[in-house]
Amino acid sequence: MALIVQKYGGTSVGSIERIKNVAERVAKFKTLGHHVVVVLSAMSGETNRLLALAKEMQALPDPRELDVLISTGEQVTIALLAMALKALGIQAKSYTGSQVRIVTDSAYTKARILAIDEERIRSDLDAGKVVVVAGFQGIDEYGNITTLGRGGSDTTGVALAAALKADECQIYTDVDGVYTTDPRIVPEARRLQTITFEEMLEMASLGSKVLQLRSVEFAGKYKVKLRVLSSFQETGEGTLITFEEENTMEQAIISGIAFNRDEAKITVLSVPDTPGIAYRILGPVADSNIDVDMIIQNIGANNTTDFTFTVHRNEYHRAIELLRDLQPKLGAREITGDDKIAKVSIVGVGMRSHVGIASTMFKTLADEGINILMISTSEIKISVVINEKYLELAVRVLHKAFNLENAASI
Amino acid sequence: MALIVQKYGGTSVGSIERIKNVAERVAKFKTLGHHVVVVLSAMSGETNRLLALAKEMQALPDPRELDVLISTGEQVTIALLAMALKALGIQAKSYTGSQVRIVTDSAYTKARILAIDEERIRSDLDAGKVVVVAGFQGIDEYGNITTLGRGGSDTTGVALAAALKADECQIYTDVDGVYTTDPRIVPEARRLQTITFEEMLEMASLGSKVLQLRSVEFAGKYKVKLRVLSSFQETGEGTLITFEEENTMEQAIISGIAFNRDEAKITVLSVPDTPGIAYRILGPVADSNIDVDMIIQNIGANNTTDFTFTVHRNEYHRAIELLRDLQPKLGAREITGDDKIAKVSIVGVGMRSHVGIASTMFKTLADEGINILMISTSEIKISVVINEKYLELAVRVLHKAFNLENAASI
Repeated sequence: MALIVQKYGGTSVGSIERIKNVAERVAKFKTLGHHVVVVLSAMSGETNRLLALAKEMQALPDPRELDVLISTGEQVTIALLAMALKALGIQAKSYTGSQVRIVTDSAYTKARILAIDEERIRSDLDAGKVVVVAGFQGIDEYGNITTLGRGGSDTTGVALAAALKADECQIYTDVDGVYTTDPRIVPEARRLQTITFEEMLEMASLGSKVLQLRSVEFAGKYKVKLRVLSSFQETGEGTLITFEEENTMEQAIISGIAFNRDEAKITVLSVPDTPGIAYRILGPVADSNIDVDMIIQNIGANNTTDFTFTVHRNEYHRAIELLRDLQPKLGAREITGDDKIAKVSIVGVGMRSHVGIASTMFKTLADEGINILMISTSEIKISVVINEKYLELAVRVLHKAFNLENAASI
Repeated sequence: MALIVQKYGGTSVGSIERIKNVAERVAKFKTLGHHVVVVLSAMSGETNRLLALAKEMQALPDPRELDVLISTGEQVTIALLAMALKALGIQAKSYTGSQVRIVTDSAYTKARILAIDEERIRSDLDAGKVVVVAGFQGIDEYGNITTLGRGGSDTTGVALAAALKADECQIYTDVDGVYTTDPRIVPEARRLQTITFEEMLEMASLGSKVLQLRSVEFAGKYKVKLRVLSSFQETGEGTLITFEEENTMEQAIISGIAFNRDEAKITVLSVPDTPGIAYRILGPVADSNIDVDMIIQNIGANNTTDFTFTVHRNEYHRAIELLRDLQPKLGAREITGDDKIAKVSIVGVGMRSHVGIASTMFKTLADEGINILMISTSEIKISVVINEKYLELAVRVLHKAFNLENAASI
């Protein structure tokens, strides 16, 4: 008998039928004798519907009131699932974030969990009930309703699993696990049975979007056993996210290929190469709340330097304008940029102990005539920026080069 | 500077535009220097939409979960109105029932208010904020979400007005006050400037539907000054509901004519006239949760009696079946009934001190050939049951007979 936290996302509870399917899955686990805590998102589309209403009331909706409004989405699904479970003869009880007492800070629309009072949930579990908790929401110390930001339901699931010392936190989604890359681009892409937390962090931040980055960090911090599963398949092991490099002998060097086409790059050409130049360029960018991803600085001629960085594509024009305003002050020759780029990354803990991974990557791309515009590396990933039009080709040839269609290869 | 509680019903907040209109009305009161607490219902149709979802999950939805579900309706409107007020530059803050701490008993879907913690609201008012409270909902002592039943938002408004010792509780609805009768039947029907609580109780229970019966009782108990107003008219005094028979000299004997076509009558013919017979008939009816309104017992021949009562028309067939099953045990000769009846009542505190009101009523109906099937009286009302087809005619001739189109008449 295990204690399992199951989190179902918006598409998994997107209709009456799907909520009933979730109830049947939960009932199966309950019948096997497990304690089950279910964490739910709002029905898909509901949060956007509520956001649209808010924007009709106030151009920039008040954050406190926005949280009061959008937290109703999960409150609806928890009540409906509890009813569906009762209709199946399963004892169930719903909890809003406020009722659990998922205490957060007061940063409306992007609050962070500070503490969870798990007492009442535990006593309901002991009484044989399935506990259904609203994801994504909490309450601050003054009793105000807060939300954790998009994808916050994953964080709720992991945080509850940590607080309850659950045996496993299962994240049900519309994919059946983490893949070596996007199967829509590479049909041979293979589901990974396990992936390490570090790899998952790199995959998630690079746009794999299976799990919210913050929930993975949370799981790593509290050593929560996390599994990604499909809510639309009857069976399947999903992908287990592990803490350690277990069985490295059998593990592939590269676990997967992530990519992201939401970026744009900006180059500041020929600025005087003086101490503090990076800060003088990126300080104003950060002050304007524009996130910067990759940063590269090349030594140039005549005591000047070229400085390149990437931002989210939506911020591209704002960033370019900002820097052109600054250009005289920076003493830069020119501000150029390109928003038709894509980032491709190979990720794997195995590359730590292997050489030649980078050269295989670069040779593979060169063989296809794909020019590399930027390179950035970490302990367990190598990212390159290329022209957007080569993205699919690059992912396919790299997937093949690292033999990812076969398990435990190279 | 007064403290005003304003309650807006579902049609008054039924769309984005209407919520913005409410915001403008509230802003006007605020600009005049008043403290304003606003109580809101869910957008019209929303509660029914949620109920329909619940019924798809569970034939008889779990009451606790139903309250979790339908309480989201008001949570949406309070957030939207707070945003609309802020868009107008008015400081505002929303509260769910749980956040105020409107403490109720645990009778889900029909909870009763036990206590209101008005501290936080008062401090927000003192800070110059408009406080926007979700009607219809509360929280029990264990932290479970409860609702007060249909029309419960009126009760929330009156209860808050009582707790805050407000100068006035204004109920905004889609009519501009309480009328002498339904203007759709009698075009000459006149809006009453004042009506006593007792009259209002009789009018409400007889189907005038302007105010929920319970909220009127509550207002009477705590001496809350209650005013019914239209949310669709810019101006108008509405109808003030008073505690005492003020200015009886100028007041009409009859304040209004109420009617109800939702009833049906059932007669148990020739039962033995023994002690306890009323209980043996009505006990099983009450046990089946069928509400009984009027009850008449006639002495019959041969130590038998005829027993007639009215029930809601929706319960008619169930009640008839129930009694036919009981017929042998009761020793009744026959069970008959009629669901094509209507009840018409004249209401007025003035009739206490005047004779001849009943005879005027009966003569007026007789002159039109309208047969009276049942009669029931109280201190301030006389009700008759007639054939449904004469309802409009009866209301019209009685309205004229008591000269209700003219103020302070007879």
